[in-house]
Amino acid sequence: MTTTSIAIVGYGNIGRGVHESIKRNDDMKLAGILTRGPERVEDELSGQMDEIPPIVDASRDTLFDEELPADVAVLCGGSKDDLPVQGPKFAQFYNVVDSFDTHADIPDYIEEMDRVSSENDNVAIVSTGWDPGTFSLERVLADAFLPGADHYTFWGPGVSQGHSDAARQVDGVKDARQYTLPIDEAIEKVRSGERPDLDTDEKHTRKVYVVAEEDADRHRIKAEIKNMPNYFEPYDTTVIFIDEEKMQQEHDEYPHGGFVLASGETGNSGNEALIEYNCDWDSNPEATANILVAHARAARRINGRGQSGARTLLEIQPADLSPHSRETLRSEYM
Amino acid sequence: MTTTSIAIVGYGNIGRGVHESIKRNDDMKLAGILTRGPERVEDELSGQMDEIPPIVDASRDTLFDEELPADVAVLCGGSKDDLPVQGPKFAQFYNVVDSFDTHADIPDYIEEMDRVSSENDNVAIVSTGWDPGTFSLERVLADAFLPGADHYTFWGPGVSQGHSDAARQVDGVKDARQYTLPIDEAIEKVRSGERPDLDTDEKHTRKVYVVAEEDADRHRIKAEIKNMPNYFEPYDTTVIFIDEEKMQQEHDEYPHGGFVLASGETGNSGNEALIEYNCDWDSNPEATANILVAHARAARRINGRGQSGARTLLEIQPADLSPHSRETLRSEYM
Repeated sequence: MTTTSIAIVGYGNIGRGVHESIKRNDDMKLAGILTRGPERVEDELSGQMDEIPPIVDASRDTLFDEELPADVAVLCGGSKDDLPVQGPKFAQFYNVVDSFDTHADIPDYIEEMDRVSSENDNVAIVSTGWDPGTFSLERVLADAFLPGADHYTFWGPGVSQGHSDAARQVDGVKDARQYTLPIDEAIEKVRSGERPDLDTDEKHTRKVYVVAEEDADRHRIKAEIKNMPNYFEPYDTTVIFIDEEKMQQEHDEYPHGGFVLASGETGNSGNEALIEYNCDWDSNPEATANILVAHARAARRINGRGQSGARTLLEIQPADLSPHSRETLRSEYM
Repeated sequence: MTTTSIAIVGYGNIGRGVHESIKRNDDMKLAGILTRGPERVEDELSGQMDEIPPIVDASRDTLFDEELPADVAVLCGGSKDDLPVQGPKFAQFYNVVDSFDTHADIPDYIEEMDRVSSENDNVAIVSTGWDPGTFSLERVLADAFLPGADHYTFWGPGVSQGHSDAARQVDGVKDARQYTLPIDEAIEKVRSGERPDLDTDEKHTRKVYVVAEEDADRHRIKAEIKNMPNYFEPYDTTVIFIDEEKMQQEHDEYPHGGFVLASGETGNSGNEALIEYNCDWDSNPEATANILVAHARAARRINGRGQSGARTLLEIQPADLSPHSRETLRSEYM
């Protein structure tokens, strides 16, 4: 078994998830952590581990891969501010894997990452995770296997960071957690083969848990959230006020999941077919972390075959994601 | 859009399904049909089509690809008698795709196909279909994304040809159709995160529809089927006698489907995760046909990049299966 050594770039929720995921994969090794806050990470880890892994200050411009040798750097930053900078920076030094998820900017981001990683003989696997990510993969597979089918993606039940942040902007809101909930009846309609036309707001409802400031007008907060254009206005939205203690006790995890469905026909006599993929993760950042780590394995292998440049998970052979040998896959997984 | 021209080898249920699937894919073209029974196929098609495609007698030893030029030959024969002969024969002349599904023999078959296709600069994609096939792919993906998970495959509800044939061997049975049914309670147990240990017979029941000879002893038939070792004895099996008319009316289709589930944990605080894939095809042979045709597209592309040799669908980039351009996939499917 060939080991893949991983440099974690950024030690937030996803970075911590990558650290845990490495422990669950026998062929993975933590090379170290690259972070803009080395002291904070060192403090955090010294309470948990006997032997602290190498921690490198990644905020400097003079960073080189010799400072922290690793097969792959797993970029754990956010798509808005971190990855557009981190991606091209670290693709100079390392094979990289990231979860860039600003859908509209993916083509431009890939182009930039392809340029930098190709120039430096590295491989970059961008936009892994679950959507974009495994959901994209399942949409492409279902479309290829069932041409002409109607496709449906449902998100949830799970927490949406973007919608939680939006609710938090409302005056008088101290904290907010937004759950996206798929509408069961809509999923059942798709499963029945009815092939309905469904807009996003016909597939989902939204539930917002809010901790309000003590003297805030709850009626106004409720109305402002429910009427927020794009975010909440088109949806059936429920707003529930709770106290800080309950928020911490019951809404401290970030579960997520969803459904990808394709409904179509085969042959010439109206034979129906349905393909469904769904996942349900108690922890959204740990889900992303697990998927990143599997793609780090693939990045090492692809680069080891002399290839370079950027690609998405649509351009990865599934066998390259697996810890098992080709022989084991053929005899035990086929 | 580059067209893939396909030679269908064998014109049974799967071959007919491939023919229909080609019509549903704008980038596919039927080059012709290779068959051991050219007259029969010509008779069948002349009733359906104005312009009969080229039909070539494939039983001869002197066949060459010049007789029916095509990008890919899709082999539609059975795994027991047809493919062990057809595979190595046609891999000399064409890129080939097949649905070889004798699990235990897959490694040897790949080796032989790899030798022949490599020698002739062709690509062979073997053991596509749905299990082995898309189910294998989903098992590998779930295992890579959720290390340490427990894995479950359920088959059905659907017709099993092997078990139908076995029931037909019983003295006094004129016809039989065997449905494999997944046990809902077992699926629910897996979905709940309980991670139960389940043998095949704890996951499935079997239902056999039998047309008996007029004077046959139905009690004996029932007992013989239910007690047949391996096939039925370990299972809760129901035997139902029907007449020939009902068999033709209600059991003339070959639906199939099933479930692939993985249940595990992420992180270090017991966060649960569940991944589920399921499909439900009214027509099993048309499902296989659709999946074969998508892999024919991939075979042409891979060979077009100068590669040769045998591989399974675990070694195919998903983008190669898709009719869409890389740009469309990145902007619309990610």
